Amino acid sequence: KLRIAIDSGLVITEGDLMQERRHDYWVISHLDDVQGRPAPTPACVVQPRSVEDVVAIVNACRENNAALVPFGLGSGVCGGVIGNPEAVLLDMSEMNGTRVIDETNLLASFDAGKNGGEAEREVAAKGLTIGHWPQSIDVSSVGGWIATRASGQFSTAYGNIEDIVYSIEAVLPNGDVINAGVAPRASAGPDLRHILMGSEGTLAVITGVTFSLRRAPEKQSYSAFHAPDMATGFEAQRHIVQADWLPPVMRQYDSKEAQRNFPDHARGEDSLLLCVHEGPAARVDTEIEAVAKIAKDSGLDLADATVCEHWLGHRNNVPTWSQFLENGIVLDTIEVSATWTKIGPIYEDAVARLKTVDGMLNASAHSSHVYRSGLNLYFTFAAQPSSPEAMADTYSTAWRHVLEATFEGGGGVAHHHGIGRVRKDFLVCDIGASGVDALRAIKGALDPEGIMNPGVLLPDA
Amino acid sequence: KLRIAIDSGLVITEGDLMQERRHDYWVISHLDDVQGRPAPTPACVVQPRSVEDVVAIVNACRENNAALVPFGLGSGVCGGVIGNPEAVLLDMSEMNGTRVIDETNLLASFDAGKNGGEAEREVAAKGLTIGHWPQSIDVSSVGGWIATRASGQFSTAYGNIEDIVYSIEAVLPNGDVINAGVAPRASAGPDLRHILMGSEGTLAVITGVTFSLRRAPEKQSYSAFHAPDMATGFEAQRHIVQADWLPPVMRQYDSKEAQRNFPDHARGEDSLLLCVHEGPAARVDTEIEAVAKIAKDSGLDLADATVCEHWLGHRNNVPTWSQFLENGIVLDTIEVSATWTKIGPIYEDAVARLKTVDGMLNASAHSSHVYRSGLNLYFTFAAQPSSPEAMADTYSTAWRHVLEATFEGGGGVAHHHGIGRVRKDFLVCDIGASGVDALRAIKGALDPEGIMNPGVLLPDA
Repeated sequence: KLRIAIDSGLVITEGDLMQERRHDYWVISHLDDVQGRPAPTPACVVQPRSVEDVVAIVNACRENNAALVPFGLGSGVCGGVIGNPEAVLLDMSEMNGTRVIDETNLLASFDAGKNGGEAEREVAAKGLTIGHWPQSIDVSSVGGWIATRASGQFSTAYGNIEDIVYSIEAVLPNGDVINAGVAPRASAGPDLRHILMGSEGTLAVITGVTFSLRRAPEKQSYSAFHAPDMATGFEAQRHIVQADWLPPVMRQYDSKEAQRNFPDHARGEDSLLLCVHEGPAARVDTEIEAVAKIAKDSGLDLADATVCEHWLGHRNNVPTWSQFLENGIVLDTIEVSATWTKIGPIYEDAVARLKTVDGMLNASAHSSHVYRSGLNLYFTFAAQPSSPEAMADTYSTAWRHVLEATFEGGGGVAHHHGIGRVRKDFLVCDIGASGVDALRAIKGALDPEGIMNPGVLLPDA
Repeated sequence: KLRIAIDSGLVITEGDLMQERRHDYWVISHLDDVQGRPAPTPACVVQPRSVEDVVAIVNACRENNAALVPFGLGSGVCGGVIGNPEAVLLDMSEMNGTRVIDETNLLASFDAGKNGGEAEREVAAKGLTIGHWPQSIDVSSVGGWIATRASGQFSTAYGNIEDIVYSIEAVLPNGDVINAGVAPRASAGPDLRHILMGSEGTLAVITGVTFSLRRAPEKQSYSAFHAPDMATGFEAQRHIVQADWLPPVMRQYDSKEAQRNFPDHARGEDSLLLCVHEGPAARVDTEIEAVAKIAKDSGLDLADATVCEHWLGHRNNVPTWSQFLENGIVLDTIEVSATWTKIGPIYEDAVARLKTVDGMLNASAHSSHVYRSGLNLYFTFAAQPSSPEAMADTYSTAWRHVLEATFEGGGGVAHHHGIGRVRKDFLVCDIGASGVDALRAIKGALDPEGIMNPGVLLPDA
């Protein structure tokens, strides 16, 4: 029925693409594949080439009461996409043009399916940068950054996606095209960009994005420090950022991660803090000196800063799930955030709880995004339960431990990967029951037929 | 009927307060008072002391289908409050406590009715700053800053209210209390804080606000420059901010405003650029040197920086409307923003159009908020039409000229005063018809009875 409504040239119902679009990079979908419970293929894959195509597809789905699942480049790790045999999979990967790069106003507009790494390289060729460096940059789309409310590795100075986005073009479930963000700043009612950011395909299809760029920094430099423990390093980071110094990158690894990732630089049981400094040369020099002084006064020792170059060279390496899963090891990362006074206890509690999980091989964390008010933590766990059948349960238990430790410790349960399916029962921890009800009301108002990515974000969706 | 539902001790139905709460600081309301068309008093004024009081009032209004008009401290200039004899005026001024000032996490929480200047002085006593300096700081409430999506004079480095707010507590029309913002950053669906910011009383009653503070800067210093014309000064500002220098204040006055505000410092027909630099001393010194070099390379001449001290000493002086209105002069300010390539033509066009208005005495502008992508403009006009009866029309014509010049020039028609009533027919310029429809759908979902501040924000409200 849908194929009649949608231009048939765009619709794909067989072949490799139908298999590849069954899910995103959520480890549980991969586990299900490995263990013979593969997610079903969608009813069809549709590849729009234009905003008009998207409008036609949205209208066709709504009129036929068919579910619509937007898909960027599939790098999501929270289960935002899972094959639904009743649903149209809207594959944005072929809508990937560069609309304009404006070197005077430092704006760049792309189709939503544009590969992030390609977008960055295109602006870099003009001496500019988007300044958004998610680990997934080469396998994620600029529209996906919006849909999931992403963060990049240089966020401490350059901000998260909400600080980098200028405008968003999207198709609403009623078929309307919306352009949110016409000016450098607006006091014109609620900011509709913030309804679209983090909507994870449940409220609209993101079709285009404009970023507020930066000029490439005049100078990049590094510093690194050993901290006797996580808490002491956190205090140093707090003093640095609260003194109004903003190294774009500050990452602090616990001893386990320092030893694993930087065996040539880690020192005993110490935590390791890496800083990347960028900007006008004179300011970078000033900042390095000030940061070193604060670190020393906080009880940290200078480390060999070449560790930062090592990190820069390897920062986007991601393991392939299958090599672990086939060996009976289930693993993942979980990112949360909290204020300075709460983040230390959350680190200790979450790691302790993870260690109680059956077959836990590794429970560790680093911080990577710094705020005046607090810090994020990025936990990594890997567990090999006694039987492969237990892997999915082990995974859920590990997640539950970290999110409960975070919630009970007063933190926020989602820093930058989004909600998807893995966190939807914990959304209430962040925004409360009244917040969930408000989101559900907004969803009902914009998508009354409930066609947009059902099963994602909202607890009972 | 409402008095039965609301605790009678809070309800006021006579006296000066009923007169004082008829409207905000919108000049048209004052003109109506002067010209014998006073806005009516509300049905009653209610002064809550707690969140529970607000919940009870909201529930009573909803159950009695009575309109509810939230009122902070009345400094709004867009007609967000006008007396409605059928409506309950919710006066937040007595709900003005300080909940907590957290010197470790740099957070401060206040009741929504807290006076902004008092809030700033309380954190300043601990060596901290909110960093939000609207001209109205001493006559506005912290909740009003949220409701109107305000900007402060130091926004170029410290951001606008959306960059300073940590969490918002509000009572939704259904009586639910929502707390939006639990962590330093979240990727947990759409950001509900951005539904509340700019909602101007139409979606919720803001009851509490938590700000992410800064430590008081180690050093404050100044620089100032003469620019041969506005466009040359704009280019200098663009180069400064795009080189990643961020003086918290950069204000550029056209020759008319330079001569009027700084007669001892203005130079001929030149435009005047003021910068305030703040931060760690070493960085401030580096910044002043770099900014001076960029300004010189852009064709600007160094001016006497004591002009900045003069500005700091007089920056919050505001004329009393009545002295002008009673002399037949209608006047106002209008703030807009646009990208760098568009802002110069918008300045020229808007001023030229203002000069065509009957009896125009002054048409001028300055910029005061700088972004990588562009700049705001703050127009000031004063006109004395041939007859007092024409004043309201003259006012509307002046506004229409500036907003049309901005819209036709590709800018955003509202930088930081909000929409209220004066701009509501122009909201569509910023967010498009589909954006207005989306906002209306959200309003319908959260406030299905339409009790919240009817007549404001939405064009047909």
